[in-house]
Amino acid sequence: MISKAKSKFIKSLQVKKYRVEEQCFVVEGAKSVLELLRSDFEIVMLVATPEFMLKYKHKMNSQIERIEASEKEVAGLGSFQSNEDVIAVARMKTNQTVRLEFDEYGLVVDDIRDPGNLGTIIRIADWYGIQHIIASEQSADFYNPKVISSSMGSFCRVNIFYTSLTAYLSKRKTTCYGTFLNGQNVHQVNFETAGLIVIGNEARGISAEVEHFIDQRISIPKFGRAESLNAAMATAVVLDNLRRSKK
Amino acid sequence: MISKAKSKFIKSLQVKKYRVEEQCFVVEGAKSVLELLRSDFEIVMLVATPEFMLKYKHKMNSQIERIEASEKEVAGLGSFQSNEDVIAVARMKTNQTVRLEFDEYGLVVDDIRDPGNLGTIIRIADWYGIQHIIASEQSADFYNPKVISSSMGSFCRVNIFYTSLTAYLSKRKTTCYGTFLNGQNVHQVNFETAGLIVIGNEARGISAEVEHFIDQRISIPKFGRAESLNAAMATAVVLDNLRRSKK
Repeated sequence: MISKAKSKFIKSLQVKKYRVEEQCFVVEGAKSVLELLRSDFEIVMLVATPEFMLKYKHKMNSQIERIEASEKEVAGLGSFQSNEDVIAVARMKTNQTVRLEFDEYGLVVDDIRDPGNLGTIIRIADWYGIQHIIASEQSADFYNPKVISSSMGSFCRVNIFYTSLTAYLSKRKTTCYGTFLNGQNVHQVNFETAGLIVIGNEARGISAEVEHFIDQRISIPKFGRAESLNAAMATAVVLDNLRRSKK
Repeated sequence: MISKAKSKFIKSLQVKKYRVEEQCFVVEGAKSVLELLRSDFEIVMLVATPEFMLKYKHKMNSQIERIEASEKEVAGLGSFQSNEDVIAVARMKTNQTVRLEFDEYGLVVDDIRDPGNLGTIIRIADWYGIQHIIASEQSADFYNPKVISSSMGSFCRVNIFYTSLTAYLSKRKTTCYGTFLNGQNVHQVNFETAGLIVIGNEARGISAEVEHFIDQRISIPKFGRAESLNAAMATAVVLDNLRRSKK
C-alpha cells in the first residue's frame, strides 16, 4: 500500500515543472526498470508488486526505498496502462557539457519535439554505439515518461546535453554533418573518424541558425515518391551508413 | 452543415467491421486528402471547410459529393483533433494478389500489429520505391485511420495484399530475405535483382511458419548495446542497404 503523499509525488513527476523542482523522474515497466537497476542512475524509490519485489530482490540496492503495491495501484501511478509490475523514481543527472573522444561521433538534435521520436532516436543511437546526444533547449525533455519508455531502456546508456546549439557548434573541432533534401548522397559520403550528425525538427528540418554551422550537407537518396522520411527513420539510415563507411 | 446520418456513417468507419461492410475508409487532413485527390482511389464524399472547398475546387471531380462544414464539425468527424480542414471517404480497393515484375522487390509483413508502425512502414516502402506489401491476415488493417495518417500520403502509392503468408511464400520464385538477430550482416549482403524482404512482428519477430520459407537470414549489425531496433527502423535500414547494393 502506497501513501497518498507518495502517490501524489510520483504522479507529479509526469509534469516537467515538478521533475525539475524535485530533480527526479519516473521509469515504468519491468524491462526499463531492470535496465535502470543495472545503470548508474540513483534510484530513489521502487513501487512494485510483491511478485516483482521477490523475483528481483537480489538486484536491488538495500538503500532504495521499496514499497509494495497491487497491480492496480502500480498502473494508477504511471502514464501507461499496460504497466502493472513496477514503477521507479530515479534522480536526474546534471546537464553536463559533452566531451567527445577524438574518434567519437555525437548526435545533435535540433528541436525534436515529439517525445516518442526522441525516445526512438535514443534507442537508435544506442544501437549504433552513439553515447552522446546534444539537444537544443526546445527539444523534448529526456526525462519525459514517453521518452524514457520509447527509448526501451537505452536512456540508461545514452547521455543527453541540453544547450544552445549555436554556442555548442561554434566551438566544434570536428566535421558537422546535417541532413537536408539536397545534400550529398549518404551512400557516397566518406565520413571522417569523428564528427557530429545533426537531425532537424520533424516539420521544418534543421533551423537556419544551426544550418550555418553545417560543414557537409547529406541526403538519404529517394527511390520512390514519398515526400520525406521521419526524423527517427532518417537517424537510423544515416547512422547505419556512418557505421558502414567507417569499417 | 452535415446531416446526422452522414456524420454517423463517417464515424462508423473508424471501426474495421463497418469499413468492411461499407467497403469505405476515411482520410483525414489536407495533406493526405490532397494526395488522395491525385490518386486512383474512388472518392465517395468530401467534408471540408468552405475555405478548403474554394481553394481546391479545381482538384475535385464534380461527381464527388461535397459537404461544407465548420472546423469544429470536421474535427468531430475524425480521430485526430488536429485535423480541422477536411475529411474524405474513399472506396477500399479489392484485396488482389500481387504480381511482382521480374526485377521488383516486395515487402512482406508478418503480423505488424501496430497501425502506426504499419503506416510508417508504408511510408518507408514508398520512399525506397517498393510498391507492393504482402501482409499476413493478422497484420494491422491498411484502412485503419492511424495507418492512413501515419503513412503521410504513401497509402496512395503502395498496394497491400492480405493473405496467408505460408501459402504466398510457398509459391515464390525469388529469394526471400528475412531479418533476424543472427543472420548475415546486411552491409555485406549482395541482394538479388528481385526478391522479397520479410519484416517480423514487433515483439516476437518472424514466426516459425514463415521462417521456414526464408532463403537468406539477414541482420542489421549492432555497434552499441540496445537490445533491438523497432520494426519500422529495421525496414528503413534494410531497404536502404538493398537500394545501395543494387546500384
